Amino acid sequence: MASIFTKIIERELPAHVVYEDAHAIAFLDIHPKAEGHTLVVPKREVAHFEELPAEDLAQLGLALQKVARGIATALGTPHYNLSLNNGAPAGQVVFHVHFHIIPRREGVPIARPPLTLPEERLQEIAAAIREAIG
Amino acid sequence: MASIFTKIIERELPAHVVYEDAHAIAFLDIHPKAEGHTLVVPKREVAHFEELPAEDLAQLGLALQKVARGIATALGTPHYNLSLNNGAPAGQVVFHVHFHIIPRREGVPIARPPLTLPEERLQEIAAAIREAIG
Repeated sequence: MASIFTKIIERELPAHVVYEDAHAIAFLDIHPKAEGHTLVVPKREVAHFEELPAEDLAQLGLALQKVARGIATALGTPHYNLSLNNGAPAGQVVFHVHFHIIPRREGVPIARPPLTLPEERLQEIAAAIREAIG
Repeated sequence: MASIFTKIIERELPAHVVYEDAHAIAFLDIHPKAEGHTLVVPKREVAHFEELPAEDLAQLGLALQKVARGIATALGTPHYNLSLNNGAPAGQVVFHVHFHIIPRREGVPIARPPLTLPEERLQEIAAAIREAIG
């Protein structure tokens, strides 16, 4: 069965998409640990990081850089945590490889529990990131 | 001035090196959050993830996969967190890009404070990872 991320890629599920190319897609996390918290996902559906073919891995790296730069510009902070949870004991919930980019600011801890942002704010953030990526 | 990681690459500082190729090096973290906690570092000394040239980024991705597989075999768990802290407010301490690979097991939280492992155990873990990478 297709993962929820594949369903987002195929536009069967909604998401605030901020970037897309032939190999990867990026969209806002629905449980953001900071404003601008974004997932970067290879279009190839594999569960684990080690399973990604070299070409997809290289393209995913480039997508991560583009999205990280866009978030930095849009959110006004160059700092972020980049993370990937591999396997349930590591906190993986969706078994389709994905990196989190969580923007960080001096003195602001990771939000626990995650933020609940109004739909208008999510749209505003996503539009700003898309525009910054260009 | 060279970063402490560049000094490790140039063998001016000691480290439990588990992997090395033309573009990247990997060695045990000196403040491990789990047994087998490893840093994967591009040999090119840049402070931030966005500054890595595409070729180094692609090679770093491949090194991450190799080291992750080796850790999984050596430590006997396929689960891990992969993370990069970009900027001091995100927890970056050494300003030379590096990924953390932290092996995880069901029911075992991240060690806070980090573990203090005897030198013999560190040597044993490093040897097991090197052997698993082959």
